[in-house]
Amino acid sequence: MSEKLTDKTVTTFLDALASSAPAPGGGSVAALAGAMGSALVSMVCNLTLGKKRYADVQDDIRALVTQSEALRHELVNLLEADVQAYTGVSNAYKMPKETEEEKATRTAAIQEALKEATVVPMQVAEACCRALDLCTPAAEKGNVYAVSDAGVAALMAEAGLRSAALNIYINLNAIQDTSFCAEMGSKLDALLAGKPELKDEIYEMVVAKL
Amino acid sequence: MSEKLTDKTVTTFLDALASSAPAPGGGSVAALAGAMGSALVSMVCNLTLGKKRYADVQDDIRALVTQSEALRHELVNLLEADVQAYTGVSNAYKMPKETEEEKATRTAAIQEALKEATVVPMQVAEACCRALDLCTPAAEKGNVYAVSDAGVAALMAEAGLRSAALNIYINLNAIQDTSFCAEMGSKLDALLAGKPELKDEIYEMVVAKL
Repeated sequence: MSEKLTDKTVTTFLDALASSAPAPGGGSVAALAGAMGSALVSMVCNLTLGKKRYADVQDDIRALVTQSEALRHELVNLLEADVQAYTGVSNAYKMPKETEEEKATRTAAIQEALKEATVVPMQVAEACCRALDLCTPAAEKGNVYAVSDAGVAALMAEAGLRSAALNIYINLNAIQDTSFCAEMGSKLDALLAGKPELKDEIYEMVVAKL
Repeated sequence: MSEKLTDKTVTTFLDALASSAPAPGGGSVAALAGAMGSALVSMVCNLTLGKKRYADVQDDIRALVTQSEALRHELVNLLEADVQAYTGVSNAYKMPKETEEEKATRTAAIQEALKEATVVPMQVAEACCRALDLCTPAAEKGNVYAVSDAGVAALMAEAGLRSAALNIYINLNAIQDTSFCAEMGSKLDALLAGKPELKDEIYEMVVAKL
């Protein structure tokens, strides 16, 4: 049986999420929300391609679906990477801590694992930002019968971004490398800037087109 | 092979979502977002139960996980119901429309199917509201090491609620029964009232606890 979480059923994924296991958790949900947002952009595109009424935008929609599908696959891979990273943190905490040497080795391993568990949600946050950016052309140019799906895509991409942010914040608080923390903090601020507002704009645009 | 979408793998679910098939779409995503939010509340509870440090809140947490698990299963069932309802709408549109009688039968079937496809996301919206309400005690009383998961739960429950709302709006625009539309419209307004603000409150509470 495959060890990949995305090869499990949706029900099994939810069971694992609800359990006390360290992963999957909020980080995996962030990636899956972004993947669902990307998939919905693809859906809007697939309902627009080949339709006479949308003849003028076929090239734009083809370019859009190429991007949304790449993002979807990237976010699915990041979901798996997130599970690996959190399992790494959990394993590092379980290392022996009897002797001074063991303690030092364990602390270094925890710090390294926490960094990896921060880099992955940062990649999730970046991918969710790019997915959110695709929702504007999807809502503007895509099949109007699927415009609500473009709106749901925006809600999911933004919720995925902010979920990833919470996972980054909680790890940064435990990381001692201040220059790493400063770099990650400003990177995240730049990603978050304007995104809740963009999501609201897309939502209003969608409601106006319904 | 099971016909239930939640018995498919996560990857297969995303493939189906990205396709041009009428369902799954934004409605299924709304239900799954709510189910993920509920599952994360359960995760926070399961990481709190049996922990000495949280001895004072064990009864509250036990009551909370009972509610979050019931909501999770309700939302998974609603995901399936949403797929059924949208397939019903799609099938109604495919009915013959040659004769006047066929046209009238088809129109009535479409209207009936659209109502069902509105009632289901309304149930999703209600369940997402209840899931969001559970995030406050989860963030306040749950294991602080999992507080980011309570925050992600709130982001998902609220995004699920608003996603369900978009699916309700798009259907109401096509439904001719004005009293049904008025009733559903005011029900939805009541559900949405204050919820984005509640989500932001929980998010801020979580960030403060990190």
